[in-house]
Amino acid sequence: MLLGIPPIVSPLLLKTLSEMGHGDRLVIADGNFPAESVGRDAIVIRCDGHGVPELLDAILRLVPLDQYVDKPVTLMDVVPGDPVATPIWDEYRDIIARRDPRLNAAAGDRRPGPAGEGPSGPDDLIGKVSRFDFYDLAKSAYAVIATSESAQYANVMLQKGVVLQ
Amino acid sequence: MLLGIPPIVSPLLLKTLSEMGHGDRLVIADGNFPAESVGRDAIVIRCDGHGVPELLDAILRLVPLDQYVDKPVTLMDVVPGDPVATPIWDEYRDIIARRDPRLNAAAGDRRPGPAGEGPSGPDDLIGKVSRFDFYDLAKSAYAVIATSESAQYANVMLQKGVVLQ
Amino acid sequence: MLLGIPPIVSPLLLKTLSEMGHGDRLVIADGNFPAESVGRDAIVIRCDGHGVPELLDAILRLVPLDQYVDKPVTLMDVVPGDPVATPIWDEYRDIIARRDPRLNAAAGDRRPGPAGEGPSGPDDLIGKVSRFDFYDLAKSAYAVIATSESAQYANVMLQKGVVLQ
Amino acid sequence: MLLGIPPIVSPLLLKTLSEMGHGDRLVIADGNFPAESVGRDAIVIRCDGHGVPELLDAILRLVPLDQYVDKPVTLMDVVPGDPVATPIWDEYRDIIARRDPRLNAAAGDRRPGPAGEGPSGPDDLIGKVSRFDFYDLAKSAYAVIATSESAQYANVMLQKGVVLQ
Amino acid sequence: MLLGIPPIVSPLLLKTLSEMGHGDRLVIADGNFPAESVGRDAIVIRCDGHGVPELLDAILRLVPLDQYVDKPVTLMDVVPGDPVATPIWDEYRDIIARRDPRLNAAAGDRRPGPAGEGPSGPDDLIGKVSRFDFYDLAKSAYAVIATSESAQYANVMLQKGVVLQ
Amino acid sequence: MLLGIPPIVSPLLLKTLSEMGHGDRLVIADGNFPAESVGRDAIVIRCDGHGVPELLDAILRLVPLDQYVDKPVTLMDVVPGDPVATPIWDEYRDIIARRDPRLNAAAGDRRPGPAGEGPSGPDDLIGKVSRFDFYDLAKSAYAVIATSESAQYANVMLQKGVVLQ
Amino acid sequence: MLLGIPPIVSPLLLKTLSEMGHGDRLVIADGNFPAESVGRDAIVIRCDGHGVPELLDAILRLVPLDQYVDKPVTLMDVVPGDPVATPIWDEYRDIIARRDPRLNAAAGDRRPGPAGEGPSGPDDLIGKVSRFDFYDLAKSAYAVIATSESAQYANVMLQKGVVLQ
Amino acid sequence: MLLGIPPIVSPLLLKTLSEMGHGDRLVIADGNFPAESVGRDAIVIRCDGHGVPELLDAILRLVPLDQYVDKPVTLMDVVPGDPVATPIWDEYRDIIARRDPRLNAAAGDRRPGPAGEGPSGPDDLIGKVSRFDFYDLAKSAYAVIATSESAQYANVMLQKGVVLQ
Amino acid sequence: MLLGIPPIVSPLLLKTLSEMGHGDRLVIADGNFPAESVGRDAIVIRCDGHGVPELLDAILRLVPLDQYVDKPVTLMDVVPGDPVATPIWDEYRDIIARRDPRLNAAAGDRRPGPAGEGPSGPDDLIGKVSRFDFYDLAKSAYAVIATSESAQYANVMLQKGVVLQ
Amino acid sequence: MLLGIPPIVSPLLLKTLSEMGHGDRLVIADGNFPAESVGRDAIVIRCDGHGVPELLDAILRLVPLDQYVDKPVTLMDVVPGDPVATPIWDEYRDIIARRDPRLNAAAGDRRPGPAGEGPSGPDDLIGKVSRFDFYDLAKSAYAVIATSESAQYANVMLQKGVVLQ
Repeated sequence: MLLGIPPIVSPLLLKTLSEMGHGDRLVIADGNFPAESVGRDAIVIRCDGHGVPELLDAILRLVPLDQYVDKPVTLMDVVPGDPVATPIWDEYRDIIARRDPRLNAAAGDRRPGPAGEGPSGPDDLIGKVSRFDFYDLAKSAYAVIATSESAQYANVMLQKGVVLQ
Repeated sequence: MLLGIPPIVSPLLLKTLSEMGHGDRLVIADGNFPAESVGRDAIVIRCDGHGVPELLDAILRLVPLDQYVDKPVTLMDVVPGDPVATPIWDEYRDIIARRDPRLNAAAGDRRPGPAGEGPSGPDDLIGKVSRFDFYDLAKSAYAVIATSESAQYANVMLQKGVVLQ
Repeated sequence: MLLGIPPIVSPLLLKTLSEMGHGDRLVIADGNFPAESVGRDAIVIRCDGHGVPELLDAILRLVPLDQYVDKPVTLMDVVPGDPVATPIWDEYRDIIARRDPRLNAAAGDRRPGPAGEGPSGPDDLIGKVSRFDFYDLAKSAYAVIATSESAQYANVMLQKGVVLQ
Repeated sequence: MLLGIPPIVSPLLLKTLSEMGHGDRLVIADGNFPAESVGRDAIVIRCDGHGVPELLDAILRLVPLDQYVDKPVTLMDVVPGDPVATPIWDEYRDIIARRDPRLNAAAGDRRPGPAGEGPSGPDDLIGKVSRFDFYDLAKSAYAVIATSESAQYANVMLQKGVVLQ
Repeated sequence: MLLGIPPIVSPLLLKTLSEMGHGDRLVIADGNFPAESVGRDAIVIRCDGHGVPELLDAILRLVPLDQYVDKPVTLMDVVPGDPVATPIWDEYRDIIARRDPRLNAAAGDRRPGPAGEGPSGPDDLIGKVSRFDFYDLAKSAYAVIATSESAQYANVMLQKGVVLQ
Repeated sequence: MLLGIPPIVSPLLLKTLSEMGHGDRLVIADGNFPAESVGRDAIVIRCDGHGVPELLDAILRLVPLDQYVDKPVTLMDVVPGDPVATPIWDEYRDIIARRDPRLNAAAGDRRPGPAGEGPSGPDDLIGKVSRFDFYDLAKSAYAVIATSESAQYANVMLQKGVVLQ
Repeated sequence: MLLGIPPIVSPLLLKTLSEMGHGDRLVIADGNFPAESVGRDAIVIRCDGHGVPELLDAILRLVPLDQYVDKPVTLMDVVPGDPVATPIWDEYRDIIARRDPRLNAAAGDRRPGPAGEGPSGPDDLIGKVSRFDFYDLAKSAYAVIATSESAQYANVMLQKGVVLQ
Repeated sequence: MLLGIPPIVSPLLLKTLSEMGHGDRLVIADGNFPAESVGRDAIVIRCDGHGVPELLDAILRLVPLDQYVDKPVTLMDVVPGDPVATPIWDEYRDIIARRDPRLNAAAGDRRPGPAGEGPSGPDDLIGKVSRFDFYDLAKSAYAVIATSESAQYANVMLQKGVVLQ
Repeated sequence: MLLGIPPIVSPLLLKTLSEMGHGDRLVIADGNFPAESVGRDAIVIRCDGHGVPELLDAILRLVPLDQYVDKPVTLMDVVPGDPVATPIWDEYRDIIARRDPRLNAAAGDRRPGPAGEGPSGPDDLIGKVSRFDFYDLAKSAYAVIATSESAQYANVMLQKGVVLQ
Repeated sequence: MLLGIPPIVSPLLLKTLSEMGHGDRLVIADGNFPAESVGRDAIVIRCDGHGVPELLDAILRLVPLDQYVDKPVTLMDVVPGDPVATPIWDEYRDIIARRDPRLNAAAGDRRPGPAGEGPSGPDDLIGKVSRFDFYDLAKSAYAVIATSESAQYANVMLQKGVVLQ
């Protein structure tokens, strides 16, 4: 454990987040995601027993979202026709709104990033792709975090931005 | 994840618990325990972000306590003169009372084990050793689980018993 | 050994089953299957001396079949013209009927899975592919279990489903 | 699998038995024996799901008992005062009587070995040591086979003899 | 060494032969064959100082030839126009005639395999391919045995058959 | 790089500091310290090109000094009779005064630690040992950081304290 | 540390530079460059806490630029339309002018290299490629040095030349 | 060191030369050749401080040139228009003339190899390819020896022939 | 294979013999010697299928016996009272007489070695130790060669001498 | 290769010399020294084909001798009564006189080191120990360089000093 680092961030996760660079992607996977097979070429970090929201919140305290792309957060979209609700997405929106410096001045400086409008809310930062596109993208992620999240459609992929010193 | 296995038990922890035999010892360590250095000759399993009680409960659903020794559970005793309270020990007592088959008929059969009185409550199963004796015992444990438990005097060592098929 | 886990499931097999996710596939191979070469990119688990049925039964107590595909179980079909009988398939049907929650309410809840009819018997869950298609599919399985099963056409491939907590 | 080799003998077990020499010792351990910790300096071979007798029988078809010591087979003796019966020892006696060439001329030539009486029955080949002496001896064995044997006092240690070509 | 196993079969070779399955191929290479480079993706087993015939004979005592293909033995054919004699092929024919159960009832049962004529002599089991086709096939073999055989055109490839228990 | 983490702390150093527990020791070594040989049983982290003070400062922002011992910081004392000055020790005192929460309320809460006086200045936290005692202690440290510090008597050893969540 | 070698050059960096040959490329990356993922097939050397200029200067004291290509130094060009200034490029020009023997006779002999004009200033040695071309080239570099440089457009790739003895 | 083996042939080089077979290629590279990157899929053997001729001479005492191809020795040809002299090639011709049994009866028997003329001098054994073809061929060599040879165009590739016992 | 090297000497054996120095010891073990357990800290080289004499002969063509000790060859002495004959020792005497340069001027120069008498026959070079002393010495040998030699008392240990260039 | 580094210093040797610290020892061993067995716990660097003097000279250009001990160079003394001459020691004296800054002002600054007389010639820096003491010291060296030096009593051990930046 370290001063100021959320305890849920293990030493290996901390190292992995730290060695990621601008544009590298990270998957926070739910409990049924095939993390080991999809992450065969990635670093797989076990966080069994945890849900996605507490990891998302901890990670966004350490890792900025990519300021140079429109949608640095990617969700797996609901399969067409599936009537399922996705209340966990609201949790994600709240966490992003609380942690992204562009949405919350108190969280830090808004730099860097291209000039112009900037996001006006978390939905401006969140994209969705179909299940199979999500799998394909996940296969080239730098790391996959395997949680035990039981909510449906809970997988989330983050693209790391620039860290200003 | 598997049917009937608590999600907090990671694949590696599951394998480790399974390959332990009668008499092997396991440490569930709190967040400040030097798990990596004490566990240098052991299998160290990271469970960052979790507390000890939820792991103790999950493990006792899979691993019986040693039926052939008096005190299969070992706590690190309070340093003499330290006025600290250890409310987490009560949680441990409750978990053991709920999970040990000798204390809770509903948890399963009481066999095996020597004939005679048997434990009448969880305190009959819990021993305490001084801090330095605890460290020495921990160095020869089969595995050390590193949690983020923040309670004081929360380290606990378990000795595995016989599994009846 | 662990409480409630069939002893035939070794620590490594237990870990492997646990780290598989939704959609990952597992081959339980007979004694003459080229498990090591076909499984070159997979985890190969030796279960020499055992037959397929006892492993199938033990695994289905821990792993649900995929609720989102029509045929989560795949057999290697008899080569056209071969008059061989395949009595071991009847054993597989019995095991599946006994272990799949959708076919046996006593085995647990039927959720999750798409609404609608659901399987009415084990044959609704079992597909067959030709020998060479079976080999191709097996090469991308997550794990291959090498048994000593001596029955013919005894190889079986399982696709893991969603584990509800 | 190979012609003439019992299928229960896995490739790794076969290699291990083959590379053992005169005087090397092998433990066939029951399901609760701490095989991984006792065998930390040995080769540990998982044979989960099997009992000791079928492995003992298969191994004695490939490995001769040491012809140069009095008691090449070692059992863990019953703890003094323990009224437990050990019927599995009778099975061991039968297997040894059937497989040892000195006791069964049909099993092969009696050579080599010191001149003189030779064993007149399996008990002449079986020694017993106390539980703690057994553990100490097991720690320097060449290999430990972890079975799921559920009988009590079922651990058995073999000392390999000379193979005549 | 083991009872009944030819001493020329090393522990590693024994393990390798045992873990091969139906259809896996094995090259017994002469002393000038580029075993390490051709076998880069295979298991290479050094048998320096030995010739091919003694290894072929020992291996065929343990491994059946594939009963499901016409030519389970493959030789590297003489380059067109090369007047070289290949007397070692006669040795191979003799060994195969002596060891293959279909050609020598004393060697064991003829099963399994397709009904019909069956081979009437070793030449019915031996195919030949050109030098470059042999190299290509060898690159996907399961194992390559490097001997010091000095005869010309002495390389031989075997395809493993079904082992009946 | 991560938000709020000094860039001088590499991913590996971050992981190492994080996995250290209460009582583990860390050496920040100067450029001529035999870090690789003394640290043979430790984790050696190369920080070539850096001095000790910038690393000490960065590390104390993440790692608390041991609140349960008198002197959690250890310097290598000047060899008796050596007239050398050690101005770098003043830098260390300043850094410790600025970073230790017990000396600088602004750096955070003073807890935990035994009741009583507490340190009144950095010298209360700094012990000195002879060169050879320093070497002996360093050999059992958890990690050794190899800097290029050119100042004399610049080696410093830290003992990690308890991190409060 | 070694006599005459800049301390910032770690043992591993020294080895890596030494084993590079004519035409091998090296990336000195800024703090946000995805060094670990781009350098997946390369040797990645952490130089956290350092800037690019001090490493460039140290490396050019040991490694000559390729005398056989026009532009042995490659920068990532500014994205079209981006008004950002790149003052760090001037530092690079100064370092190259000071260290390249063709530009500074005092730095050593100008040989080898093709006859003719030769470079008249550092700009003759520096090429620029677009961001994505830079990434593609970096993926086949021999090594990637991960610094903490905070300047923008600070990544630089060097192609090693011929070392005259 | 061994009796009769040139001391310049290290244990690893000796093993590598020995495990090469007929048709395998070996590069003896000069001091600026990118041996580690070109040899990424090969065995790279460091012979720093040595020149190519002494290694060529030592190797040809142990390794015959391929008797079945026209040009078993390959040089990197001078770039068209380059007026450089290549006096080291004369050294190579002398060494080959002295060591190849077909050119020097005293060096041993001329066998094996196709009937007919045979080489009348070293130039009959030496081919040249362009720089880029040389690089491509080198990438599939079995081994690359990295020397410190300072002569230009000094790289040489050898194709191993048949060793007669 | 290499020119002038006996084919029985595998690449690994060649490397091992070459990297041994003055005073290092080598065991050539018979087929029942516990080579893997005794050689746990040594390099174990499998030569299954071979006898000791052919290896002894091949090795003495490459390795000189220690010229600075009285008895560079060590045999395991016959157990007192054992009437067994050891005809293989005569083979060893013949081989040593033929290969040791001090006993056979044709085998090479007699240097180096202390002045004085020198050995007058192979028995002057051969010592014997008891079985248990042999085992103890073998445990600190540099390498153990595992043969399939079936003769009794056939183990032999060699101490390497100085190689003159 | 690198600018200003002697080509005989391989990348691995360069790395090793660089990571050694004050007081670490290095053995430059002759061709018959048992470098691999004595250096079992050290880094062994093969420099086959080279003599000791050229390596000693190259190393002393990079590594200072320990300024804080009387005799940073250690030779293996002649065995009492041995009349052998050791002319190579004169070469060592010359090299040390040429490279040690305290003996050759042109080689660099004399600092650091204790005040006082300082060495007046190379013999002041060279100690001798008996053969067995040399072996014992060598076993705890940081690295052992294996040369092919053929001179007698040519082994030399160096203790690294302080590098001033």
